[in-house]
This record gives sequence, structure tokens and C-alpha cells, in this order.
Amino acid sequence: MKKLREGIMKIRDILNEVDKYVDTEVKVYGWIRNQRFGKNVGFIELNDGTCFKNLQIVVESDISNYNELDKQFLSTSLEVRGVLVKTGNSKNPYEIQAKEIKVLGESSDKYPIQKQRQTLEYMRTIPHLRARTNTYRAVFRVRSILAYALHNFFQQRGFVYINPPIVTSSDAEGAGEMFNITTIDPNNPPRKEDGSVDFSKDFFSKKSYLTVSGQLEAEDYALAFGDVYTFGPTFRAEESNTPRHAAEFWMLEPEMAFTDYNLAMDVAEDMIKYAIDYLLKNAPDEMEFFNKWIDEGLIERLKRVRDAEFKRLTYTEAIELLQKSGEKFEYPVEWGIDLQTEHERYLSEVIVKGPVFVTDYPKNIKAFYMKRNDDGKTVAAFDMLVPGVGELIGGSQREERYDELYKSMEENGLKPEEYQNYLDLRRFGTVVHSGFGLGFERAVMYVTGMKNIRDVLAYPRYVHAFAEKN
Amino acid sequence: MKKLREGIMKIRDILNEVDKYVDTEVKVYGWIRNQRFGKNVGFIELNDGTCFKNLQIVVESDISNYNELDKQFLSTSLEVRGVLVKTGNSKNPYEIQAKEIKVLGESSDKYPIQKQRQTLEYMRTIPHLRARTNTYRAVFRVRSILAYALHNFFQQRGFVYINPPIVTSSDAEGAGEMFNITTIDPNNPPRKEDGSVDFSKDFFSKKSYLTVSGQLEAEDYALAFGDVYTFGPTFRAEESNTPRHAAEFWMLEPEMAFTDYNLAMDVAEDMIKYAIDYLLKNAPDEMEFFNKWIDEGLIERLKRVRDAEFKRLTYTEAIELLQKSGEKFEYPVEWGIDLQTEHERYLSEVIVKGPVFVTDYPKNIKAFYMKRNDDGKTVAAFDMLVPGVGELIGGSQREERYDELYKSMEENGLKPEEYQNYLDLRRFGTVVHSGFGLGFERAVMYVTGMKNIRDVLAYPRYVHAFAEKN
Repeated sequence: MKKLREGIMKIRDILNEVDKYVDTEVKVYGWIRNQRFGKNVGFIELNDGTCFKNLQIVVESDISNYNELDKQFLSTSLEVRGVLVKTGNSKNPYEIQAKEIKVLGESSDKYPIQKQRQTLEYMRTIPHLRARTNTYRAVFRVRSILAYALHNFFQQRGFVYINPPIVTSSDAEGAGEMFNITTIDPNNPPRKEDGSVDFSKDFFSKKSYLTVSGQLEAEDYALAFGDVYTFGPTFRAEESNTPRHAAEFWMLEPEMAFTDYNLAMDVAEDMIKYAIDYLLKNAPDEMEFFNKWIDEGLIERLKRVRDAEFKRLTYTEAIELLQKSGEKFEYPVEWGIDLQTEHERYLSEVIVKGPVFVTDYPKNIKAFYMKRNDDGKTVAAFDMLVPGVGELIGGSQREERYDELYKSMEENGLKPEEYQNYLDLRRFGTVVHSGFGLGFERAVMYVTGMKNIRDVLAYPRYVHAFAEKN
Repeated sequence: MKKLREGIMKIRDILNEVDKYVDTEVKVYGWIRNQRFGKNVGFIELNDGTCFKNLQIVVESDISNYNELDKQFLSTSLEVRGVLVKTGNSKNPYEIQAKEIKVLGESSDKYPIQKQRQTLEYMRTIPHLRARTNTYRAVFRVRSILAYALHNFFQQRGFVYINPPIVTSSDAEGAGEMFNITTIDPNNPPRKEDGSVDFSKDFFSKKSYLTVSGQLEAEDYALAFGDVYTFGPTFRAEESNTPRHAAEFWMLEPEMAFTDYNLAMDVAEDMIKYAIDYLLKNAPDEMEFFNKWIDEGLIERLKRVRDAEFKRLTYTEAIELLQKSGEKFEYPVEWGIDLQTEHERYLSEVIVKGPVFVTDYPKNIKAFYMKRNDDGKTVAAFDMLVPGVGELIGGSQREERYDELYKSMEENGLKPEEYQNYLDLRRFGTVVHSGFGLGFERAVMYVTGMKNIRDVLAYPRYVHAFAEKN
């Protein structure tokens, strides 16, 4: 069978081996990303999506359809045959001198992305098209490469990738408001004798929710495989309408048996360094773009983190340092408070001047499952704080003692009988174990310098998301 | 800070460099997977989760806590110090002669996994513990390695990994029944004047659903990046209570611009071969286990697929071959029917004797977005059929012509105005493009020989799933 692409090259493959193809005839597909046509010569910036940079096509006016090409709009798709030549121009070192150009699919003056720079706010209204621009093409390729870097990091270390369920029947993991999943028609729900809705008639035969975290299930698997990680979507029905919150986002959650929180911090530190290094090596064009257009100094900042030795401070030490600093904070600093972003950034940017782990937080501001320290006041928790962002990772050693966990559940208002599976892990060969969570979009924002989570999610979901489209 | 694991090795790291450690003292952690103690000597099969095989620990009765060890139950966690020695026994070529064994976390006679072989049905009632058994440890490590193989395949070819939203406002992608996502309390919903439920007051300000496929969004991104893939959870609220159906499952969906369906079949074929080869190389112990205990002949069958040239037949040819075969099928064969698993398996197992693509299905049994062939009757769709399973992959070339797509929407009862974004792709530089979907759990079942989808999902979700737990 004849295949479509016979003789057609990807632009990436040409540029990767440019010495092989220079001065030869090549054929490529792509979309017009930019163009300017004069009387005698036209220039088309062509992109087929396979690499960040456009390839310039030079069109002489003696080409038979010069006038047809002249009147094409941005995003028209083309097939181009021509000779690849060296230009001597460092910005565009190679270009194609066109011999033949076929218009495959026309665009029009209705195409909503025009040459003048448009705002990110506007781009959010056209999520199906915005990946055709430089900014979003850079964001979403980096997102992809970062995801792969994280898989590489854990797979190469023997971690098992597990997929906890999205649908859960537990409404009280203590990590935020949850969405209900149902096939019940609220206009006509099945009812019990007392008139209330009968969820035993719902699809899963019980009220069901979207997960807020896969951690508890990851612990099950860590105690079978030693080291595991999750990487998938999680949900919070919080009405926070901020640049840092979304209702649907991806989380990476490693969980490690026979591992205390000091070792877990080692893994978190190695992971961040590996990911930064991987990105700088595998997305150099995109990272230069961010450094130039989005966040000046980004690459230097990331390199410093990659090369730093991460400091470790206890929460108690951190509070003392913040108090001694003399800095005025919006939220006053005293032992027992939850650290705010302003405190986290000050610690990392001014006091430590680099990435820092803050450890051993007061038990009252942390989750029920965290290991109680011997002081009776703190838990073996840690947050990784980085310059420019504040908290990037949160983790802890898990309470592995049955009696202590049971007590903590009761103190936190949870019903132990609803957590029998979780308690079982402490009854049948319990071991010291730890884990942490990385909000993947936060990480993408951190490595790209993008300031709004809605610009690093392909189709962001947040409170009233579908109202704004109408 | 002192770290927990100092001096402790992972069993995998010992066995990977066994020559380096033989006749030296090593320290390991692990759980008792099996044990038998006699008067003078005890044997413990220890596993720390890092590799499939257990490591045998030999305990002489002169060890100080011999009696304590003797009475431990399965799944007790231990710290073992001893000398690694060569046994001369091919089944257990290395073992540790223990010098000191500490009990870390005891188990008990309540531990629900006992030595006698237990059924998979029973194991499904203890999802938090079943990964501690050989079968599930093999399944879930293979699942992880297969996921990574698929990421490798696409990333190495420059595909961009994208994450379409799980929450969607579109209820008519035509791929099955959908779950509603809501924060509305059905006992007390907000109502419009006419008394019906007011979904504009719901979290997303509109009735919202769990996605059934990320394909339409993948097309948006393919037309920006050329080649993309999705890999994440999808949902069907179908009440099918079969060994092949789950309400929540993972899908892999590659989508490729400038690609016809012949090229898409090439990619699907290469992907399956790559994944099989990767698994055989990277999970040899697990694959041998499946071949021996779960599905005799599995490895040979997979190797034949890896080395085969996949045949391609049109649907029309396939119907003729089935009719000519003389075989009696439960569902009679005539042009226009949707092929059933019995037909698919017969085609692959008896007629072709290997993997086969069936192409160009009648348009009436396929989705609205598939490219219409010139014959007016068929579409450029394909299914990959494999021996033992039937359909493993389904894909198609997408209708890239605006007018044809519009017409197809109307013929299929869809409202084109609700698909404006999707139509936009055909207005602004349309190109030939194709994609396919691989049900990830089907793939895991295929490569492991497991017969029930509930055994390859960590926490399977299906109709009435939460009823059975009570």
C-alpha cells in the first residue's frame, strides 16, 4: 500500500543531522507560523511540531503558485520540496530554497492567533489552538519531557509504577473537599423510605468520590514492592480561584518501605536534581525560550539548585530564624503556625539562599498518618522549599505503629473502623516507611517560570470553569 | 543525621552483582514469604519487594532467638545479617547463612494469606495485601514495566505526552455511558424556577462528566506537535459485569499528524513488538512465572507476535473468509455486522495464524470522526486482532475535511455547534491525521495471560464495586 509520508522528512530529523542533508533536496510538511512576502521573494517560517524552532522556507517569485502562497494565512498546512542550504546567519543557520510548495489545508483571516503578541489570558480562551504558539509549545513539550524524566528516575531505581483508583468510597482522607461521582439523576433520584437519596442504588452501590491522593494505596504497595510511585490525576473541589490552584491536577507520589524521612529527603533531592539536569539537556531550545521571554535568570537558578547541597532545618529552627530576621511578615511568626508562602520563600531565598528542607512540624498542623516524634509535639514531616516558589514537595515518615496510628485517628476525628485496610499494614509485618508528593503542575511552573497553573494544564479545570466558556 | 538504611542492601542489588558479595557478610531487610523450621535448622524465604525471587535465609539453631523466629507468621518483617553463600542448588543458587536476625514487625495467625494456594477470587477481597503474593507481585511489576516500555517507545520517537482532562462538559463523545461529577447534594439540590436541578450552580457551572476518551483533545495537540500520546485513566458507566470490563481503566491514545491509517498501523505494530521485547528482556522472572503457572505457552506466543509480520485484511475480505470457512459461529456472519470476539479470534488464530489488522469497516458501525472512504460505504478504520484475545487495538484515520465531518456529525445525531473546537481543526490548516487506542489493562492481560481485568487493576472499579465489600 502506498503510504502518505513516503519521501517526507520530519524537520527534527533534518536538523539533527543537518550536515547529511545540506545541499540536498528534501521534502517536509508543516504549518505556516509566520510569513512575509515581497514582490520578488517570500519567507515562510514552517513548523511541523517536531521541534521548537521553525525552519525558514525561501520562496522565489518564479515559483508557479507564488500568488497563491502570498495570500495564505497563518496556520495553513503545506508540503514543501526544496534544497536545504546553509545561510551563514547564526539565527537561522539553515533554510530551504523552495522548488515546489503544495497547499494542503488552508487557514483564514478568522484564525484566532495573529502575528501580534497576544496575552496568555486570551490564549486560555482557545485551548484547542494555543499549543500552536511558541509559549505553549514550549510549556507542553517541557511538561512531557519532565514527566518522562520522573518516570526514568524512578524506573531506573527499580520503583514500581502503580495506579491507585480515581474513584474512591472514602470521603475522609483529610486532604480537601471532594467531588461526588454518580449516575443518579438528581432530578429523579432513587429514595429511601425516609425520603433521602438512596446511594445503594448508585452505580458503585455507595456514595463515591474522586480521589484526592493515592498515598494510602501507595503504602499498601510499598509494603509489597519496597519502592513504588504513583503518577496520575487527583482532584480537589476547592473553590480557590488563584493562579496556583486547579480542581484537577497531576500528582507524583513515591512511597518507600524500610525508609525513614531522612532517606526520603535524599530521594526527593536527587529526583529534583535529576529532573532539572534532564530538562536542560533534553529541552535546550525550550529552556532558552523561557529564560529569554518568560523568566529571566531561570536557567541559572535551576542550575544552582541542581548543583546545590540542600540544607535541612527543623521547623523549630526555622521559626527562630524567621523571628530573629527582623523581617515584617503579613502573617506573624510563632511556633505552631503553618508556614505561609512568604515565610517559605524568605527562608529559601534570604536565609538559606538555596533549596532547603524544613522538617519536624507541629503535629497539630499535619496529617493523621505522620509519624509522631518522641517529643510528643512534632511529626517526622518535611517540606522542600525552593527559591522563587516556596513549597515544592511535602512528605513524611508514616506512623508505622498500630497503637499510635489508632490513637492519632481518634484524635483527628477519624473512625478507625473505616481504615481497617490501612491499619492492617501495621498488623502484618509493619516497617518504617516514608513518602512524599510532588504537585506536577507546580513543578512544571517551577521549571518553566510560568506563573499561572492554567497555562501548564492542557485544559484547566477550576471552579466555574465551564461557565466562562459560554 | 543517622539514616535508617546504613549498611543495609536491597536483595536485587545483591543478586545483580552476586559474585561481588558471595562469601561476604551482608545485611538485608524483608518479609517472610515462606518458612519451615526444624529442630536444628530453619529456612526462611525472604523478600524485600525489590525482585521477584525470594532469597533463602538459613537459620541454625544456635542463633540466640531461634525460638522467637520459629514462631513467626508469614509476612513478619525482619532485619537479617549473615554471609551470602553459593549453594550448588540450581533452584536456589545463593542463600544467606544468618548470624543475626531481628524481628522488626510481627505478623499473626490472622494474616489472611496463608501458605496453601488461595484463589484469585479470594485475593480480590484483600486488595491491600494481595500484591504480597507471587501472582500479583508479578502482575503489578509487569504492569509497571509495560507502562514504562510504552513511554519509552513514544518518547524515543519524539512524541509529546499530553494529559487531556478527566473532567469534561461534553456528554456525547459517543463512546459509552458517562459518570456525572458534581458537588451538588442530591438531597438538597439548587433548583431552577421550573423545579428542575440548576446545574449552573454546580462546581463547574455546568453538568460535568468523567472522560471516556482523550482522543478529541489529542487531535488538538497532534495538530500542534505532530505526534502526541495520552496515557491515563478513562471511565465508562457501563453495567457490564464481565471479566473484560471495568468502569475505570487506563487508555493509551497516540495521535499523529501527517499520518494516514497505513502509517498508524505501522506504529501500532512496532509498538506491540517493542513492548513484548522489552518485557521479555526486563521482566524475565515474572514472564517465566506466568508461562509456568498462569498461561502455558505464553512466552512462545508472544515471541511469535514479536517476530511476525502483521497481515492486513479489509473488513470485506475478512467477512468473505469467515463465510467461506464453513465454521459455525454464534453470531452469523454477513457484511455490515460488527465483528464479535469469536470472529476476531477465528480470523487471527485459524485463518491468519497470527496477528492481523482488519481495515475499512462499514461506516455505520464506526464512530462519526472516522475518515470516509471513496466507496461511500466504509471508513478508514482498523482493529488489531491477536491470537488468544481478539481485538487489542482500535484506530482510524480521522475525517480531516470540514464538510464531510460536519455531514457525518449530522448523520450521527450530533450537534455540530457543540463541536466547534473540533471543527476548527479542519478550518485552520487541516491535515491528514490518524490515531489509535490501546486499553492498557487488556494489554496487561494479554502479556501476562491473566484472564480477569480485576486481577490487573490495583483496586478494580465496576458496577456495585463498593457493595461487595460490605
